[in-house]
Amino acid sequence: MEIKVIRHLLDESTKRAGEIRALLDNSDIFMVNMIGSPGSGKTSLLEKTLVALRGRLGCAVIEGDVATDRDAVRLQKYEIPICLINTRGACHLEPMSIRKAIDEIDLAAIDVIFVENVGNLVCPAEFDIGEHAKIAVASVPEGHDKPEKYPLLFNECKAVVLNKIDLQPFTDFDAAAFYESVKKLNAEAPVFETSCRNGEGLQEWIEWLVDARKTAARW
Amino acid sequence: MEIKVIRHLLDESTKRAGEIRALLDNSDIFMVNMIGSPGSGKTSLLEKTLVALRGRLGCAVIEGDVATDRDAVRLQKYEIPICLINTRGACHLEPMSIRKAIDEIDLAAIDVIFVENVGNLVCPAEFDIGEHAKIAVASVPEGHDKPEKYPLLFNECKAVVLNKIDLQPFTDFDAAAFYESVKKLNAEAPVFETSCRNGEGLQEWIEWLVDARKTAARW
Repeated sequence: MEIKVIRHLLDESTKRAGEIRALLDNSDIFMVNMIGSPGSGKTSLLEKTLVALRGRLGCAVIEGDVATDRDAVRLQKYEIPICLINTRGACHLEPMSIRKAIDEIDLAAIDVIFVENVGNLVCPAEFDIGEHAKIAVASVPEGHDKPEKYPLLFNECKAVVLNKIDLQPFTDFDAAAFYESVKKLNAEAPVFETSCRNGEGLQEWIEWLVDARKTAARW
Repeated sequence: MEIKVIRHLLDESTKRAGEIRALLDNSDIFMVNMIGSPGSGKTSLLEKTLVALRGRLGCAVIEGDVATDRDAVRLQKYEIPICLINTRGACHLEPMSIRKAIDEIDLAAIDVIFVENVGNLVCPAEFDIGEHAKIAVASVPEGHDKPEKYPLLFNECKAVVLNKIDLQPFTDFDAAAFYESVKKLNAEAPVFETSCRNGEGLQEWIEWLVDARKTAARW
Protein backbone atom coordinates (compact mmCIF):
# COMPACT_ATOMS: atom_id res chain seq x y z
CA MET A 1 0.00 0.00 0.00
CA GLU A 2 1.28 3.41 -0.92
CA ILE A 3 2.04 5.82 1.94
CA LYS A 4 1.34 9.43 1.15
CA VAL A 5 3.45 12.01 2.92
CA ILE A 6 1.24 15.07 3.20
CA ARG A 7 4.12 17.47 3.56
CA HIS A 8 7.44 17.30 5.29
CA LEU A 9 7.27 19.23 8.56
CA LEU A 10 10.50 21.08 7.91
CA ASP A 11 9.27 22.17 4.44
CA GLU A 12 6.16 23.57 6.10
CA SER A 13 8.30 25.41 8.62
CA THR A 14 10.54 26.88 5.89
CA LYS A 15 7.49 27.97 3.91
CA ARG A 16 6.08 29.79 6.93
CA ALA A 17 9.44 31.45 7.52
CA GLY A 18 9.39 32.74 3.96
CA GLU A 19 5.91 34.17 4.48
CA ILE A 20 7.09 35.98 7.61
CA ARG A 21 10.06 37.48 5.77
CA ALA A 22 7.78 38.67 2.95
CA LEU A 23 5.43 40.29 5.48
CA LEU A 24 8.36 42.06 7.17
CA ASP A 25 9.86 43.17 3.85
CA ASN A 26 6.50 44.63 2.94
CA SER A 27 6.60 46.75 6.10
CA ASP A 28 10.32 47.56 5.72
CA ILE A 29 11.14 45.79 8.99
CA PHE A 30 14.49 44.12 9.69
CA MET A 31 14.34 41.02 11.90
CA VAL A 32 17.35 39.79 13.83
CA ASN A 33 17.55 36.30 15.41
CA MET A 34 19.97 36.31 18.36
CA ILE A 35 21.32 32.88 19.20
CA GLY A 36 23.82 31.81 21.86
CA SER A 37 24.48 29.60 24.88
CA PRO A 38 22.67 30.17 28.16
CA GLY A 39 24.50 33.01 29.86
CA SER A 40 26.36 34.31 26.82
CA GLY A 41 24.75 37.69 27.49
CA LYS A 42 22.00 37.89 24.88
CA THR A 43 19.61 39.83 27.10
CA SER A 44 22.32 42.24 28.31
CA LEU A 45 23.38 42.89 24.72
CA LEU A 46 19.76 43.49 23.81
CA GLU A 47 19.38 45.99 26.67
CA LYS A 48 22.44 47.96 25.56
CA THR A 49 21.27 47.84 21.95
CA LEU A 50 17.77 49.09 22.75
CA VAL A 51 19.19 52.05 24.67
CA ALA A 52 21.60 52.92 21.84
CA LEU A 53 18.87 52.75 19.18
CA ARG A 54 16.35 54.85 21.14
CA GLY A 55 15.31 57.77 18.93
CA ARG A 56 17.06 56.28 15.88
CA LEU A 57 14.97 53.19 15.12
CA GLY A 58 11.66 51.80 16.34
CA CYS A 59 12.34 48.49 18.07
CA ALA A 60 10.28 45.51 19.21
CA VAL A 61 11.41 42.32 20.94
CA ILE A 62 10.23 38.72 20.77
CA GLU A 63 11.60 36.84 23.81
CA GLY A 64 11.92 33.07 23.67
CA ASP A 65 12.25 31.32 27.00
CA VAL A 66 11.96 27.74 28.15
CA ALA A 67 10.30 28.43 31.46
CA THR A 68 10.08 31.96 32.88
CA ASP A 69 9.16 35.51 31.86
CA ARG A 70 12.36 36.76 33.50
CA ASP A 71 14.03 38.25 30.40
CA ALA A 72 10.79 39.82 29.12
CA VAL A 73 10.27 41.49 32.50
CA ARG A 74 13.89 42.74 32.42
CA LEU A 75 13.13 44.52 29.13
CA GLN A 76 9.84 46.10 30.17
CA LYS A 77 11.46 49.34 31.32
CA TYR A 78 12.46 50.20 27.74
CA GLU A 79 8.81 50.83 26.88
CA ILE A 80 8.81 49.05 23.55
CA PRO A 81 6.54 46.23 22.33
CA ILE A 82 7.67 42.91 23.87
CA CYS A 83 6.17 39.51 23.09
CA LEU A 84 7.10 36.56 25.24
CA ILE A 85 7.08 33.07 23.77
CA ASN A 86 7.30 30.57 26.61
CA THR A 87 8.29 27.32 24.87
CA ARG A 88 7.35 25.18 27.93
CA GLY A 89 10.53 23.16 27.69
CA ALA A 90 11.09 23.20 23.91
CA CYS A 91 14.62 24.00 22.83
CA HIS A 92 14.11 26.50 19.99
CA LEU A 93 11.63 28.93 18.46
CA GLU A 94 9.77 28.05 15.28
CA PRO A 95 7.95 30.19 12.68
CA MET A 96 4.41 29.35 13.84
CA SER A 97 4.85 31.05 17.22
CA ILE A 98 6.96 33.86 15.74
CA ARG A 99 4.10 34.66 13.37
CA LYS A 100 1.65 34.80 16.27
CA ALA A 101 3.97 37.14 18.15
CA ILE A 102 4.41 39.43 15.12
CA ASP A 103 0.64 39.60 14.71
CA GLU A 104 0.48 41.06 18.24
CA ILE A 105 2.84 43.93 17.35
CA ASP A 106 1.69 47.18 15.74
CA LEU A 107 4.16 47.13 12.86
CA ALA A 108 3.58 50.73 11.76
CA ALA A 109 6.10 52.22 14.18
CA ILE A 110 8.66 49.39 14.01
CA ASP A 111 11.96 49.29 12.09
CA VAL A 112 13.69 46.37 13.79
CA ILE A 113 12.41 43.25 15.56
CA PHE A 114 14.92 41.50 17.80
CA VAL A 115 14.22 37.85 18.53
CA GLU A 116 16.06 36.47 21.54
CA ASN A 117 16.05 32.75 20.91
CA VAL A 118 16.19 30.04 23.60
CA GLY A 119 19.68 29.82 25.17
CA ASN A 120 21.10 26.96 23.12
CA LEU A 121 23.94 26.73 20.58
CA VAL A 122 22.53 23.72 18.76
CA CYS A 123 18.82 23.59 17.87
CA PRO A 124 17.92 27.27 17.24
CA ALA A 125 20.54 27.42 14.46
CA GLU A 126 18.64 24.79 12.49
CA PHE A 127 15.42 26.75 12.13
CA ASP A 128 14.68 29.63 9.79
CA ILE A 129 12.12 31.74 11.64
CA GLY A 130 11.81 34.37 8.92
CA GLU A 131 14.71 36.49 10.16
CA HIS A 132 17.01 38.53 7.93
CA ALA A 133 20.08 37.86 10.02
CA LYS A 134 21.09 35.30 12.60
CA ILE A 135 23.56 36.74 15.11
CA ALA A 136 25.87 34.36 16.99
CA VAL A 137 26.36 35.63 20.55
CA ALA A 138 29.41 33.93 22.06
CA SER A 139 31.23 34.86 25.26
CA VAL A 140 34.84 34.68 26.36
CA PRO A 141 34.41 32.36 29.39
CA GLU A 142 32.75 29.73 27.16
CA GLY A 143 36.13 29.22 25.50
CA HIS A 144 37.63 29.76 22.08
CA ASP A 145 36.69 26.31 20.77
CA LYS A 146 32.94 26.90 20.52
CA PRO A 147 32.73 27.80 16.80
CA GLU A 148 34.55 24.60 15.89
CA LYS A 149 32.40 22.51 18.23
CA TYR A 150 29.05 24.06 17.25
CA PRO A 151 29.70 24.97 13.61
CA LEU A 152 26.20 25.38 12.20
CA LEU A 153 25.37 28.66 13.93
CA PHE A 154 28.73 30.22 13.07
CA ASN A 155 28.31 29.04 9.51
CA GLU A 156 24.81 30.53 9.15
CA CYS A 157 25.19 33.82 11.00
CA LYS A 158 25.64 37.31 9.51
CA ALA A 159 27.74 38.53 12.45
CA VAL A 160 29.38 37.23 15.60
CA VAL A 161 29.31 39.10 18.90
CA LEU A 162 32.08 37.95 21.25
CA ASN A 163 30.78 39.18 24.57
CA LYS A 164 32.29 39.42 28.10
CA ILE A 165 35.61 40.50 26.62
CA ASP A 166 36.38 42.10 30.02
CA LEU A 167 36.87 38.58 31.43
CA GLN A 168 39.64 37.70 28.96
CA PRO A 169 42.55 38.44 31.35
CA PHE A 170 41.17 35.90 33.83
CA THR A 171 40.71 33.01 31.37
CA ASP A 172 42.76 30.92 28.90
CA PHE A 173 40.73 32.29 25.96
CA ASP A 174 42.86 32.15 22.78
CA ALA A 175 41.51 34.97 20.58
CA ALA A 176 43.60 33.96 17.55
CA ALA A 177 42.19 30.42 17.63
CA PHE A 178 38.65 31.81 17.96
CA TYR A 179 39.05 34.12 14.96
CA GLU A 180 40.66 31.42 12.89
CA SER A 181 37.82 28.95 13.40
CA VAL A 182 35.14 31.59 12.78
CA LYS A 183 36.89 32.54 9.54
CA LYS A 184 37.07 28.92 8.39
CA LEU A 185 33.32 28.53 8.87
CA ASN A 186 32.28 31.96 7.65
CA ALA A 187 34.64 34.28 5.83
CA GLU A 188 32.03 37.07 5.59
CA ALA A 189 30.80 37.50 9.16
CA PRO A 190 32.39 40.33 11.15
CA VAL A 191 33.27 39.68 14.80
CA PHE A 192 32.44 42.36 17.41
CA GLU A 193 34.25 42.12 20.73
CA THR A 194 31.94 43.57 23.35
CA SER A 195 31.56 43.99 27.08
CA CYS A 196 28.08 44.80 28.30
CA ARG A 197 29.65 45.51 31.69
CA ASN A 198 32.00 48.32 30.59
CA GLY A 199 30.49 49.24 27.21
CA GLU A 200 33.53 48.25 25.15
CA GLY A 201 32.84 47.56 21.47
CA LEU A 202 29.11 48.23 21.59
CA GLN A 203 29.29 51.24 19.26
CA GLU A 204 30.75 49.17 16.40
CA TRP A 205 28.04 46.55 16.82
CA ILE A 206 25.30 49.20 16.76
CA GLU A 207 26.65 50.88 13.64
CA TRP A 208 26.89 47.52 11.86
CA LEU A 209 23.29 46.78 12.83
CA VAL A 210 21.99 50.12 11.53
CA ASP A 211 23.87 49.58 8.30
CA ALA A 212 22.84 45.91 7.97
CA ARG A 213 19.20 46.95 8.12
CA LYS A 214 19.70 49.02 4.98
CA THR A 215 21.68 46.41 3.06
CA ALA A 216 19.76 43.27 4.10
CA ALA A 217 17.75 43.26 0.88
CA ARG A 218 20.95 42.78 -1.13
CA TRP A 219 22.23 39.79 0.89
CA MET B 1 -10.08 2.93 10.14
CA GLU B 2 -8.18 2.25 13.30
CA ILE B 3 -4.63 3.57 13.50
CA LYS B 4 -2.30 1.41 15.48
CA VAL B 5 0.53 3.11 17.26
CA ILE B 6 3.28 0.49 17.43
CA ARG B 7 4.97 2.06 20.41
CA HIS B 8 5.61 5.60 21.49
CA LEU B 9 9.19 6.56 20.67
CA LEU B 10 9.85 7.99 24.10
CA ASP B 11 8.56 4.79 25.76
CA GLU B 12 10.98 2.82 23.63
CA SER B 13 13.81 5.14 24.66
CA THR B 14 12.92 4.82 28.37
CA LYS B 15 12.77 1.04 28.05
CA ARG B 16 16.24 0.94 26.50
CA ALA B 17 17.54 3.20 29.26
CA GLY B 18 16.21 0.75 31.84
CA GLU B 19 17.98 -2.12 30.09
CA ILE B 20 21.25 -0.20 30.17
CA ARG B 21 20.88 0.49 33.88
CA ALA B 22 20.20 -3.18 34.56
CA LEU B 23 23.29 -4.17 32.56
CA LEU B 24 25.44 -1.71 34.52
CA ASP B 25 23.98 -2.78 37.87
CA ASN B 26 24.84 -6.35 36.98
CA SER B 27 28.47 -5.32 36.50
CA ASP B 28 28.46 -3.03 39.56
CA ILE B 29 29.16 0.03 37.37
CA PHE B 30 28.01 3.54 38.27
CA MET B 31 27.13 5.76 35.29
CA VAL B 32 27.14 9.55 35.54
CA ASN B 33 25.50 11.83 32.93
CA MET B 34 27.18 15.24 32.93
CA ILE B 35 24.99 17.99 31.49
CA GLY B 36 25.65 21.72 31.12
CA SER B 37 25.86 24.66 28.72
CA PRO B 38 28.61 24.88 26.11
CA GLY B 39 31.68 26.14 27.92
CA SER B 40 30.50 25.41 31.47
CA GLY B 41 33.64 23.32 31.90
CA LYS B 42 32.38 19.75 31.62
CA THR B 43 35.53 18.44 29.94
CA SER B 44 37.85 20.27 32.36
CA LEU B 45 35.91 18.87 35.32
CA LEU B 46 36.13 15.42 33.78
CA GLU B 47 39.90 15.78 33.37
CA LYS B 48 40.38 16.76 37.02
CA THR B 49 38.06 13.96 38.12
CA LEU B 50 39.89 11.29 36.10
CA VAL B 51 43.22 12.34 37.61
CA ALA B 52 41.79 12.31 41.14
CA LEU B 53 40.22 8.86 40.71
CA ARG B 54 43.32 7.25 39.20
CA GLY B 55 44.22 4.20 41.27
CA ARG B 56 40.94 4.41 43.23
CA LEU B 57 38.33 3.55 40.61
CA GLY B 58 38.41 2.22 37.06
CA CYS B 59 36.94 4.89 34.77
CA ALA B 60 35.65 5.05 31.21
CA VAL B 61 34.24 8.00 29.28
CA ILE B 62 31.53 8.34 26.64
CA GLU B 63 31.93 11.69 24.90
CA GLY B 64 28.97 13.26 23.12
CA ASP B 65 29.78 15.95 20.60
CA VAL B 66 27.83 17.67 17.86
CA ALA B 67 30.68 17.96 15.39
CA THR B 68 34.27 17.27 16.43
CA ASP B 69 36.40 14.72 18.30
CA ARG B 70 38.09 17.56 20.18
CA ASP B 71 37.02 16.59 23.72
CA ALA B 72 37.70 12.89 23.15
CA VAL B 73 41.21 13.72 21.92
CA ARG B 74 41.72 15.94 24.99
CA LEU B 75 41.01 12.94 27.22
CA GLN B 76 43.21 10.43 25.38
CA LYS B 77 46.22 11.11 27.57
CA TYR B 78 44.46 9.60 30.61
CA GLU B 79 44.77 6.16 29.02
CA ILE B 80 41.28 4.97 29.85
CA PRO B 81 38.58 3.63 27.50
CA ILE B 82 36.95 6.53 25.61
CA CYS B 83 34.02 6.23 23.19
CA LEU B 84 33.09 9.19 21.05
CA ILE B 85 29.50 9.65 19.94
CA ASN B 86 29.42 12.27 17.20
CA THR B 87 25.76 13.26 17.00
CA ARG B 88 26.19 15.00 13.61
CA GLY B 89 24.23 18.01 14.70
CA ALA B 90 21.77 16.36 17.09
CA CYS B 91 21.31 18.15 20.39
CA HIS B 92 21.41 15.32 22.93
CA LEU B 93 22.49 11.72 23.48
CA GLU B 94 19.97 8.90 23.51
CA PRO B 95 20.07 5.32 24.86
CA MET B 96 20.55 3.59 21.50
CA SER B 97 23.97 5.13 20.89
CA ILE B 98 24.93 4.90 24.58
CA ARG B 99 24.28 1.16 24.43
CA LYS B 100 26.49 0.82 21.36
CA ALA B 101 29.25 2.74 23.13
CA ILE B 102 28.98 0.59 26.29
CA ASP B 103 29.24 -2.55 24.16
CA GLU B 104 32.62 -1.28 22.96
CA ILE B 105 33.98 -1.02 26.52
CA ASP B 106 35.52 -3.96 28.39
CA LEU B 107 33.37 -3.66 31.50
CA ALA B 108 35.44 -6.01 33.67
CA ALA B 109 37.88 -3.32 34.81
CA ILE B 110 35.38 -0.46 35.05
CA ASP B 111 33.73 1.03 38.17
CA VAL B 112 32.44 4.34 36.78
CA ILE B 113 31.37 5.48 33.30
CA PHE B 114 31.23 9.23 32.78
CA VAL B 115 29.02 10.44 29.95
CA GLU B 116 29.74 13.97 28.80
CA ASN B 117 26.51 14.98 27.11
CA VAL B 118 26.20 17.56 24.29
CA GLY B 119 26.70 21.12 25.57
CA ASN B 120 23.07 22.12 26.04
CA LEU B 121 20.97 22.96 29.10
CA VAL B 122 17.66 22.01 27.51
CA CYS B 123 17.37 18.78 25.52
CA PRO B 124 19.82 16.40 27.28
CA ALA B 125 17.89 16.84 30.54
CA GLU B 126 14.80 15.28 28.94
CA PHE B 127 16.37 11.92 28.12
CA ASP B 128 17.10 9.04 30.45
CA ILE B 129 20.17 7.34 28.95
CA GLY B 130 20.43 4.68 31.63
CA GLU B 131 22.54 6.76 34.00
CA HIS B 132 22.40 6.52 37.79
CA ALA B 133 22.93 10.24 38.28
CA LYS B 134 22.55 13.34 36.18
CA ILE B 135 25.04 16.04 37.22
CA ALA B 136 24.22 19.67 36.43
CA VAL B 137 27.43 21.53 35.52
CA ALA B 138 26.81 25.27 35.77
CA SER B 139 29.41 28.03 35.75
CA VAL B 140 29.63 31.43 37.41
CA PRO B 141 29.87 33.58 34.24
CA GLU B 142 26.60 32.09 32.93
CA GLY B 143 24.80 33.94 35.72
CA HIS B 144 22.86 33.00 38.83
CA ASP B 145 19.49 32.83 37.03
CA LYS B 146 20.18 29.66 35.04
CA PRO B 147 18.46 27.15 37.40
CA GLU B 148 15.27 29.20 37.31
CA LYS B 149 15.42 29.62 33.53
CA TYR B 150 16.31 25.99 32.73
CA PRO B 151 14.57 24.17 35.59
CA LEU B 152 14.30 20.60 34.30
CA LEU B 153 17.99 19.73 34.63
CA PHE B 154 18.28 21.22 38.11
CA ASN B 155 15.13 19.39 39.09
CA GLU B 156 16.37 16.02 37.84
CA CYS B 157 20.01 16.09 38.89
CA LYS B 158 21.63 14.34 41.87
CA ALA B 159 24.24 17.08 42.32
CA VAL B 160 25.14 20.52 41.00
CA VAL B 161 28.69 21.58 40.20
CA LEU B 162 29.07 25.36 40.13
CA ASN B 163 32.28 25.73 38.18
CA LYS B 164 34.59 28.70 37.40
CA ILE B 165 34.12 30.00 40.92
CA ASP B 166 37.46 31.86 40.48
CA LEU B 167 35.66 34.30 38.13
CA GLN B 168 33.12 35.34 40.77
CA PRO B 169 34.92 38.58 41.78
CA PHE B 170 34.74 39.82 38.18
CA THR B 171 31.01 39.20 37.62
CA ASP B 172 27.65 40.16 39.15
CA PHE B 173 26.97 36.54 40.13
CA ASP B 174 24.60 36.45 43.12
CA ALA B 175 25.45 33.21 44.96
CA ALA B 176 22.52 33.52 47.38
CA ALA B 177 20.03 33.78 44.50
CA PHE B 178 21.65 30.77 42.80
CA TYR B 179 21.42 28.60 45.92
CA GLU B 180 17.87 29.70 46.58
CA SER B 181 16.62 28.71 43.14
CA VAL B 182 18.48 25.39 43.16
CA LYS B 183 16.94 24.60 46.55
CA LYS B 184 13.45 25.45 45.31
CA LEU B 185 13.84 23.02 42.41
CA ASN B 186 15.73 20.32 44.25
CA ALA B 187 16.07 20.28 48.02
CA GLU B 188 18.27 17.14 47.98
CA ALA B 189 21.03 17.99 45.49
CA PRO B 190 24.29 19.24 47.01
CA VAL B 191 26.09 22.12 45.28
CA PHE B 192 29.87 21.92 44.81
CA GLU B 193 31.67 25.18 44.08
CA THR B 194 34.68 24.33 41.97
CA SER B 195 37.45 25.93 39.96
CA CYS B 196 39.21 23.66 37.49
CA ARG B 197 41.79 26.43 37.10
CA ASN B 198 42.95 26.58 40.73
CA GLY B 199 41.60 23.27 42.05
CA GLU B 200 39.21 24.81 44.58
CA GLY B 201 36.37 22.55 45.72
CA LEU B 202 37.33 19.55 43.61
CA GLN B 203 38.09 17.32 46.61
CA GLU B 204 34.53 17.63 47.95
CA TRP B 205 33.10 16.76 44.53
CA ILE B 206 35.34 13.68 44.23
CA GLU B 207 34.45 12.40 47.69
CA TRP B 208 30.74 12.85 46.98
CA LEU B 209 31.16 10.92 43.72
CA VAL B 210 32.97 8.02 45.39
CA ASP B 211 30.29 7.87 48.04
CA ALA B 212 27.41 8.26 45.55
CA ARG B 213 28.68 5.22 43.66
CA LYS B 214 28.17 3.14 46.82
CA THR B 215 24.75 4.52 47.71
CA ALA B 216 23.22 4.79 44.19
CA ALA B 217 21.34 1.52 44.58
CA ARG B 218 19.37 3.00 47.48
CA TRP B 219 18.28 6.19 45.62
